[in-house]
Amino acid sequence: ALAAPALAQENPEINWRCTSSFPKSLDTLYGAAEVFSKRVAEMTDNKFQIQIFAAGEIVPGLQAVDAVSNATVEMCQTCSYYFVGKDPTFAIATAIPFGLNARQQNAWMYQGGGIDLFNEFYAKYNFVAMPAGNTGVQMGGWWRKEIKSVADMQGVKMRVAGIAGEILAKLGIVPQQIAGGDIYPSLEKGTIDAAEWVGPYDDEKLGFAKVAPYYYYPGWWEGGPMIHLFINTDKFNALPDNYKAAVRAAAAQADIYMLARYDMQNGPALKKLAAEGAQLRPFPQDVMQAAFKAAEDVYAEISAKNENFKKIYESMKAYRSDAYFWFQFSEGFYDRFMFAQQQAKAL
Amino acid sequence: ALAAPALAQENPEINWRCTSSFPKSLDTLYGAAEVFSKRVAEMTDNKFQIQIFAAGEIVPGLQAVDAVSNATVEMCQTCSYYFVGKDPTFAIATAIPFGLNARQQNAWMYQGGGIDLFNEFYAKYNFVAMPAGNTGVQMGGWWRKEIKSVADMQGVKMRVAGIAGEILAKLGIVPQQIAGGDIYPSLEKGTIDAAEWVGPYDDEKLGFAKVAPYYYYPGWWEGGPMIHLFINTDKFNALPDNYKAAVRAAAAQADIYMLARYDMQNGPALKKLAAEGAQLRPFPQDVMQAAFKAAEDVYAEISAKNENFKKIYESMKAYRSDAYFWFQFSEGFYDRFMFAQQQAKAL
Repeated sequence: ALAAPALAQENPEINWRCTSSFPKSLDTLYGAAEVFSKRVAEMTDNKFQIQIFAAGEIVPGLQAVDAVSNATVEMCQTCSYYFVGKDPTFAIATAIPFGLNARQQNAWMYQGGGIDLFNEFYAKYNFVAMPAGNTGVQMGGWWRKEIKSVADMQGVKMRVAGIAGEILAKLGIVPQQIAGGDIYPSLEKGTIDAAEWVGPYDDEKLGFAKVAPYYYYPGWWEGGPMIHLFINTDKFNALPDNYKAAVRAAAAQADIYMLARYDMQNGPALKKLAAEGAQLRPFPQDVMQAAFKAAEDVYAEISAKNENFKKIYESMKAYRSDAYFWFQFSEGFYDRFMFAQQQAKAL
Repeated sequence: ALAAPALAQENPEINWRCTSSFPKSLDTLYGAAEVFSKRVAEMTDNKFQIQIFAAGEIVPGLQAVDAVSNATVEMCQTCSYYFVGKDPTFAIATAIPFGLNARQQNAWMYQGGGIDLFNEFYAKYNFVAMPAGNTGVQMGGWWRKEIKSVADMQGVKMRVAGIAGEILAKLGIVPQQIAGGDIYPSLEKGTIDAAEWVGPYDDEKLGFAKVAPYYYYPGWWEGGPMIHLFINTDKFNALPDNYKAAVRAAAAQADIYMLARYDMQNGPALKKLAAEGAQLRPFPQDVMQAAFKAAEDVYAEISAKNENFKKIYESMKAYRSDAYFWFQFSEGFYDRFMFAQQQAKAL
């Protein structure tokens, strides 16, 4: 065999497939994968092409991890918490109720050891992960009836999954699993009483205000949900070093892109929703407190039997305490003053 | 002349110099330039080397823009607002009092047209800019005496510059220009009564608590100060497209790095400062309100005579109103609940 000339190795031609767990209609989520792919191509003289496939085109959204583990595809764009059925530890990489906000999640992941802790955990699934987006605090969903206290939550059938569902069940909610496209008719018919989706920009497109007008905030189960790219370990390791670096850098650009785009879109979308009849309501304080207590109980239960969860949860928790100590003097005080100006129509 | 083989052009060897406006002692600020340089090298097989120089090694920190404009160096890492003497418009790219917080500044820059507006403005100085870091909300500085109302600010000599100094002057403060290294002795001798620097992590190293114990928050003149890379336009345009893409991506990585690192460091540093005797104080509400009013007056005065400022300020302001509308329901409500848990020692 002939040795390839060294220069030809600089930017070899490589084609990958990335399956997204999102449909194209969630354009800010799905769009971040396209941004990622485009940036990688630009950095490699278009030699490294990563084609993005929407959920269902190759595998369903919730099979993205298996497809990467067994190298059906080289990589996926997904929410780690979709895979809590394999291990609840998956949840912390995206968001757990009363976890970090988006900025803190970035800080902990990039500078607090979060990325390394997760890659140690993900190794047995044969993939490496990198942060690649965030939605910011989501909304608390659409409710057909007003919730004035925990008492009003008894027996309420709500479309909500994962650890959030487990915690809400402790408050009396009956969690339901329903695909995105079935939420509207289920709320309309009253098959369910409430449903959580994302935030104003994505929610507005589905018209929930017409069938479940009470729009609650905040989505305390998703304070800073982070989206990830999972890449098959062997495929990643086989990349030249400059392509590995390009992948990491493009993931960082997708990370910034998604949050920035949601932060531009949600304000106008919420105003539009309010004009269309959405009734904005904060969760009552007793609901927030009961949910916080239930969350602590759930984390203690999981930690008692799952070392991986315990280790990563404790790391997140230690930073959360420091972060909220600092943020109350900085972001908290600054933003509170600005909120007051906004309410006084001075902004 | 011989045509170079096409493959050899893929990753040509290029060496640049980047002058930072920061000393190495501000390791999180300066360190972000090193992260940028390292990432560019990784993405280009070490062919594109950018050497970082601390302030003063090539030119003083406040001459960074001129050095880039006239191509003494290819690029710099700096705060745009250092150059308000050339045009107050420079300030908005970093932070103006009561401007956007860090997340909003990113959103407006990357997705709200901010980057393009500034590059249109910067074109006449012969450089292109990209975001490359943020400190988050800074602190309101160290004060020798407590400030209980605007009345206590009369005649107070404070180390503060730029538009913040102009606004504080309207409240009775006498702004002073003093280099970083001279702040401590000036406070100790009483030559000045107050000084602003950065935030807990950077401030702690200089020991201000011993000579001016009242540590005020928030730094309302710096709600989300963004650091930039400025690159000489001709030098940037001469780069191959894949290197341009690598530069943009590495700047995004520096952007994430700096904020994440400050968000990790400031909590522990503030606890240490409090243990060392720093007296944490919020600015009184009448000071905040008077400063907000004075800021609006200053922006109206500048806008009346500066079209560039007016155009960019109005763009920022329109987004600020939308952003603070949305953030009050999302981040604001979520964080407030978490602050309460932190204060109740439940985190």
